[in-house]
Amino acid sequence: MKSLEDILEIREINRWVRRFERSPHQRNAPHASDAELVELGGNNGQLLAVTIDTVSEEITRGIYREPFTMGWVTVMACLSDLAAVGADPLGVVVSVSVEPARGPAFCDGIARGMQAACRRSGVWILGGDTNTSLSINLTGCAAGLLPRRNRLTRIGCKSGDLVFLSGPAGAGSAIGLARLAGLPPELFPESAYRPSARIREGRLLRNYASCCMDTSDGVLATLDQLMRLNAAGFVVETDPKSILRRDVARLADFARIPPWVMLAGHHGEFELLFTVPAVKAADFQSEASRMNWAPVPIGRVAAGQGIQLKVEGRLRTIDTGSIRNLFAKYGDSPDAYVRELLKCTL
Amino acid sequence: MKSLEDILEIREINRWVRRFERSPHQRNAPHASDAELVELGGNNGQLLAVTIDTVSEEITRGIYREPFTMGWVTVMACLSDLAAVGADPLGVVVSVSVEPARGPAFCDGIARGMQAACRRSGVWILGGDTNTSLSINLTGCAAGLLPRRNRLTRIGCKSGDLVFLSGPAGAGSAIGLARLAGLPPELFPESAYRPSARIREGRLLRNYASCCMDTSDGVLATLDQLMRLNAAGFVVETDPKSILRRDVARLADFARIPPWVMLAGHHGEFELLFTVPAVKAADFQSEASRMNWAPVPIGRVAAGQGIQLKVEGRLRTIDTGSIRNLFAKYGDSPDAYVRELLKCTL
Repeated sequence: MKSLEDILEIREINRWVRRFERSPHQRNAPHASDAELVELGGNNGQLLAVTIDTVSEEITRGIYREPFTMGWVTVMACLSDLAAVGADPLGVVVSVSVEPARGPAFCDGIARGMQAACRRSGVWILGGDTNTSLSINLTGCAAGLLPRRNRLTRIGCKSGDLVFLSGPAGAGSAIGLARLAGLPPELFPESAYRPSARIREGRLLRNYASCCMDTSDGVLATLDQLMRLNAAGFVVETDPKSILRRDVARLADFARIPPWVMLAGHHGEFELLFTVPAVKAADFQSEASRMNWAPVPIGRVAAGQGIQLKVEGRLRTIDTGSIRNLFAKYGDSPDAYVRELLKCTL
Repeated sequence: MKSLEDILEIREINRWVRRFERSPHQRNAPHASDAELVELGGNNGQLLAVTIDTVSEEITRGIYREPFTMGWVTVMACLSDLAAVGADPLGVVVSVSVEPARGPAFCDGIARGMQAACRRSGVWILGGDTNTSLSINLTGCAAGLLPRRNRLTRIGCKSGDLVFLSGPAGAGSAIGLARLAGLPPELFPESAYRPSARIREGRLLRNYASCCMDTSDGVLATLDQLMRLNAAGFVVETDPKSILRRDVARLADFARIPPWVMLAGHHGEFELLFTVPAVKAADFQSEASRMNWAPVPIGRVAAGQGIQLKVEGRLRTIDTGSIRNLFAKYGDSPDAYVRELLKCTL
């Protein structure tokens, strides 16, 4: 039985979780949803969803170089957590800590990115905090509401459910690879990495999906997490290349990396990965197409844990647990990271 | 007319505020309340209060040296903002970014401080985010509810209202002075700085107070902010020494600093400074004593802007605007800071 504790990052988080008492009003277990869900009290039938995300390493490691991107991602990261639980956003608060030497143009860029992300999502920044710090830290916290009867978490899929992505993936791996490996920036310009939180889609999913999680840590880590939480397996029958955005697939070709590796990077985007029971699939897809949304079918939930992916046209089991732990060991060396990654097809 | 824009920090914040569109559902203007207030929608008669605060400089400048204090203050800072709007807390999310070299004992200390602050306040940490960062940044975000009809903000006091503090103040200035001036730590041990958010008191104040704000930036900055927001003056008739905690007054004596200076430091604590209309004062005070709470009466609201304080037994006008701007110029030098401060009695 594959346990969450096999994953180094989860062990780290559990050290924190164990130190805190749990709220009797909370309606999600640790790791079990993208946003925290808590009773509002009274009889209004709604839950508050709240989530916090900090952007820091992506900046200091040079993955994001434009302040616009830094601000954009700070807002989208927390909104995406709301999307994954199907919540209607109430607003965002931000905390901006920048180095004293940063000028006003830099902060203007961050603010423009934040504002653009809000406008794209139909959300507003309500307020925040600013500080100077020896190293940049941008934090977004989003709050939203969802009907209690539509509680959507990472848990609930059953063998036979269909698996979808809200859209083509891989942009997070692509920009991570391009920057960390020092590829020419024009191969994957920063403007190509402007992932949008799937709020509208999440609102529909709360009526149909059996589980949902965003791909902020990459598609394979998302599948791995759902596998452990649901004690289920995932068979990704769609060819990895067809799951990728076209510009991402082109970058993989250029870098001579198999397409599936672009689903494995630790830095993701904000698509939703979700499951729909087969009996609901037709209704779901017709509702989706009515809102001009074409989810990407990628496979099905299987009995027994394990992640299967098409490698060179053939379904292979991928050791996603080892892949998730690679970053701690080889995160500083993209070459070694990819080399070790390629060993993880069993 | 004294404007908010006279204050350098406010100008800085306004640069951010201007960059963002305002939510049509928000029920507070910028600077006008300690927490952001937003409509929940529907007819439930409640507002969501949400707020975010980062603790960073206090650590890197050596004011907080024990991880327990760092965690404690991170939680209390955001809960105090909820207290100042009279909200009932729903929970807290935290984001912890620490340097890679910090060991588990350090993080344990932070967590113990966070958990102790939650338990003291009857609140829970719902979840969070952890990161490594080149410099420590601890962020807390708290959400709560308050009845719409009891909206409590920084605005609403009238000439003749009575002014109170929720308890003796000055602990923030005291630890700031002691650490930045390099006084022997035992003169004001870190354990003496464990301010508690006044949640219970805020819940009562939402029925009585005409305005309220916490003293997280020090008492004089709080009075100055309320003066600018309400176009009103404050006459602090109580002798400053009687407003201070006893250990704080002793430290002022030792450092040969006039007691009122301990209300002027930029680093505060989490008392509430609030006003009560004279006609409600008797009822308020009997309700307060019923809950075993003894607010400290410090003076009254006057017509016309200005802050008056007893210096050497005589009411003097204090240039609180200049004091608030001192930190930007002399924050690095406690001696110069106090010297310039003493010039601010007009």
